[in-house]
Amino acid sequence: MVTLKGQDMSNPSAAMLVIGDEILSGRTRDSNLHHLAKELTAHGIRLAEARVVADEHDRIVAALNDLRGGVDHVFTSGGIGPTHDDITADAVAAAFGVPIDVRDDARALLEAHYQRTGLDLNAARLRMARIPEGATLIDNPVSAAPGFTLGNVHVMAGVPAIFQAMVASVLPTLTGGDALLSQALDVRRGEGEIAGPLGELAARYPMLGFGSYPWIRDGAHGTQIVVRGTDGAQLDAAMVELTRMLDARA
Amino acid sequence: MVTLKGQDMSNPSAAMLVIGDEILSGRTRDSNLHHLAKELTAHGIRLAEARVVADEHDRIVAALNDLRGGVDHVFTSGGIGPTHDDITADAVAAAFGVPIDVRDDARALLEAHYQRTGLDLNAARLRMARIPEGATLIDNPVSAAPGFTLGNVHVMAGVPAIFQAMVASVLPTLTGGDALLSQALDVRRGEGEIAGPLGELAARYPMLGFGSYPWIRDGAHGTQIVVRGTDGAQLDAAMVELTRMLDARA
Repeated sequence: MVTLKGQDMSNPSAAMLVIGDEILSGRTRDSNLHHLAKELTAHGIRLAEARVVADEHDRIVAALNDLRGGVDHVFTSGGIGPTHDDITADAVAAAFGVPIDVRDDARALLEAHYQRTGLDLNAARLRMARIPEGATLIDNPVSAAPGFTLGNVHVMAGVPAIFQAMVASVLPTLTGGDALLSQALDVRRGEGEIAGPLGELAARYPMLGFGSYPWIRDGAHGTQIVVRGTDGAQLDAAMVELTRMLDARA
Repeated sequence: MVTLKGQDMSNPSAAMLVIGDEILSGRTRDSNLHHLAKELTAHGIRLAEARVVADEHDRIVAALNDLRGGVDHVFTSGGIGPTHDDITADAVAAAFGVPIDVRDDARALLEAHYQRTGLDLNAARLRMARIPEGATLIDNPVSAAPGFTLGNVHVMAGVPAIFQAMVASVLPTLTGGDALLSQALDVRRGEGEIAGPLGELAARYPMLGFGSYPWIRDGAHGTQIVVRGTDGAQLDAAMVELTRMLDARA
């Protein structure tokens, strides 16, 4: 695989922190990382790193403090539900060194929701109104319990439908960079055969990113070549050269 | 969500490092983490953390050195192909401070494979025989180019079919702990309604892990409760109590 380099390094950067034992035990296949990665790329924000940690206070705090200084935005998923081990909000408060308690505006959102659905706003559910001091709420159109943004950390639910709704409300508020364009070419040749010429082409187009992804389907081997960049004209020119180059070696 | 705690903390621990821009750009949905998580759990090894980093030397080295001291095993996927930016092997060598070069036994594997398939073992492909000093090779029955184990770091390919084959050859060589058993119960009640009683039950069974996972299907809400542990009799007893408890509140 050839690294995507250069062309989007001036774009804002992000990291994701997935919080959940169920991902690490193999019970659940995470889908939030893939969703966020696609949305960020479309918005011109470069996802630099992702981590998955267990629901343990110290690990969440350490990961948050490790990540938030190195990127423009950190997005978290998971651990903001009603049970006593949904500890993400407390961990975020601890990471920033700010107090946390039930907040009136968050409580009002829950009260309205549970009144509407005829359910009891019990002590467990009220935990979801605990918001670190200084945070801004993130709207949850699915089940009311809000996410929040504190500093450059956006705290969102783990349930994919809610996570996606929260991403949709947060992203438009963030400054993006140039959207990353891409074109792909599928060849029935091994990565080892095209690695040389592809490396030469990549050297001549330093502002584009060249990726090669080997595949195996029904016993046949091949490679998908993906060229990415923010300059459409350069991208077109590189694809013409690439096609010519591979034809010449066919 | 309720944390999985206690019962498998004496088992060996592991971390995974996924190396690949294509995961972070959203082009590819990673499936290796989910596969490894399931296999490790079945083998009695606890996956404590996972990270995804870009194909950048310094980031890979830093992540490796951050992870390998804290767990019994680190598994990596990706970046060991033939292109000039497949840099995982060099990064692992740098992390351990050992030299790396083409090794005779790895070269012999590639020579045999390319002779058999009638393809040329060119300079790009020969890069896949670069192995850090002191490493043990990991068999690749799909496309010959080996992975390797250096210290407690197991370096494997990113292509899922090859990754899975390498996991299958490495895992039986590692000491596992007690296999983790689990039982699940699906209820049509919100997580907030069962959080209280579930927390009480979890407190009475400190050797078991209690997870609650909210779901939304066709507009209906519910929760799956998963109880995990290595002691089958305790697990059975807890499930009986759980069912009784939830019936009583129905």
